[in-house]
Amino acid sequence: MNKEMTDNREKVTVVKVGGAVVEDPEQLAELLDNFSAIEGKKVLVHGGGRRATKVASQLGIESHMVGGRRITDEQMLSVVTMVYGGLVNKNLVARLQAKGVNALGLTGADMDVIRSHKRPLKSVKMDDGTTQMVDFGYVGDVDYADGARFASLLDSGITPVVAPLTHDGEGNMLNTNADTMASTVAKALAERYDVTLIFSFEKKGVLSNPDDDDSVIPVITRALYNKYVGDGTISGGMMPKIENALEAVESGVKRVIITLAAAISDDTQGTTIQINE
Amino acid sequence: MNKEMTDNREKVTVVKVGGAVVEDPEQLAELLDNFSAIEGKKVLVHGGGRRATKVASQLGIESHMVGGRRITDEQMLSVVTMVYGGLVNKNLVARLQAKGVNALGLTGADMDVIRSHKRPLKSVKMDDGTTQMVDFGYVGDVDYADGARFASLLDSGITPVVAPLTHDGEGNMLNTNADTMASTVAKALAERYDVTLIFSFEKKGVLSNPDDDDSVIPVITRALYNKYVGDGTISGGMMPKIENALEAVESGVKRVIITLAAAISDDTQGTTIQINE
Repeated sequence: MNKEMTDNREKVTVVKVGGAVVEDPEQLAELLDNFSAIEGKKVLVHGGGRRATKVASQLGIESHMVGGRRITDEQMLSVVTMVYGGLVNKNLVARLQAKGVNALGLTGADMDVIRSHKRPLKSVKMDDGTTQMVDFGYVGDVDYADGARFASLLDSGITPVVAPLTHDGEGNMLNTNADTMASTVAKALAERYDVTLIFSFEKKGVLSNPDDDDSVIPVITRALYNKYVGDGTISGGMMPKIENALEAVESGVKRVIITLAAAISDDTQGTTIQINE
Repeated sequence: MNKEMTDNREKVTVVKVGGAVVEDPEQLAELLDNFSAIEGKKVLVHGGGRRATKVASQLGIESHMVGGRRITDEQMLSVVTMVYGGLVNKNLVARLQAKGVNALGLTGADMDVIRSHKRPLKSVKMDDGTTQMVDFGYVGDVDYADGARFASLLDSGITPVVAPLTHDGEGNMLNTNADTMASTVAKALAERYDVTLIFSFEKKGVLSNPDDDDSVIPVITRALYNKYVGDGTISGGMMPKIENALEAVESGVKRVIITLAAAISDDTQGTTIQINE
């Protein structure tokens, strides 16, 4: 379905799976089957926010979100370190091992693969239209990912399973958005490989009509995106997702696919974000 | 202090640190300084039982111990997976990274480095002298460790930081005793390296007089152990620790040192368990 330039480099698939899929036993089983079925080198990046919210609440810790992002105080940092780095990550690793995928769980701290700095106060547009300076707490904005290290793991047959946690190089873990982790890893690998980044998702792709689940837009380029935003076809929460995807393809990732978790091993489905039509 | 056979192989130090040290900020800082100061290739194996008990209790989950070992039901397995694999492990990794040690957190599931099977019902001698068949739940008895994989990590400058968790190869994580993890890793490396295994500990070593902290027995061999047990110098909880250590040296580990957490980088201290005097 995609016209693209010839690329003789080896293919790598980076799959991002969100907390909703991770939390649902049936969807998770299907995701793991499909991920295991992907041929060649691959990386899984996972979320886990729903489980973190649940564990935090069981521990009597309130979750605060601003603009869809979690405020991470010290207690919440412990919770996400436990839940993302331990519970979710290790269960994914064990289950992939059982399917013959030689998985290795990683946070950014492990082998220093992804380093970040604590996010400074940030101006955020609130739901009521006002703008406020927000302290997100122990949240990491990514500085770099070690593409050579990821490549060397992939070349020795390892499948990295990446939790949405980084470190600051000064001894502190930091909470980092899973979509950002996925595009960071994909971009770091793009120098060496033909990289496909797949954001798995609860819909079939980017829809031209939100009420019609089958109205998937097959291809989005920068030019098409501008057109769709201009005519109102694309709006709201889908915009940062696609902007993030466009930024990844403009940084060397070959294509980004937004698709159902059930369809990650089928590249004829979903919406493909790529440089040219 | 130790007379030993010449060994031209490269040295590796495996350090086990228990939950008590991990939970105490001052002791932990000292341990990390000392561990970082150890020259050459090294592995850190950690516990975390105290923190697991604390988190479990905050979650309203009771901890059940039999003969000093935790009963691991499904809920407790989630807790130890979070606490050992996430909270404790990732904080150790981040702090070692800050000290220039290229740490990589591992459970047995990661790269399939340590595989185990769920412990069958086991006959346990209770405090009241009776014997009972105990179901320890999701506890793993180790089947093998991948010495080649550990060696390849060490050879590329990585310092593994191992959490006391294994997997069964069928998708399940299992809780595994940290002392056992440490001797498993040490034995797996003994084929390739001159391995020193250090159990760090709240005393200066094995004491000949429990009331005199300075009565450290410098060297214990199998023959000396039998003599000390015979005359009552060594008894109680120290016996399984030393038996485990003797078993390690009889399986190729060059020496096992039982010492203060503060003394792990000073090999003139503590009790050394070795084959010959």
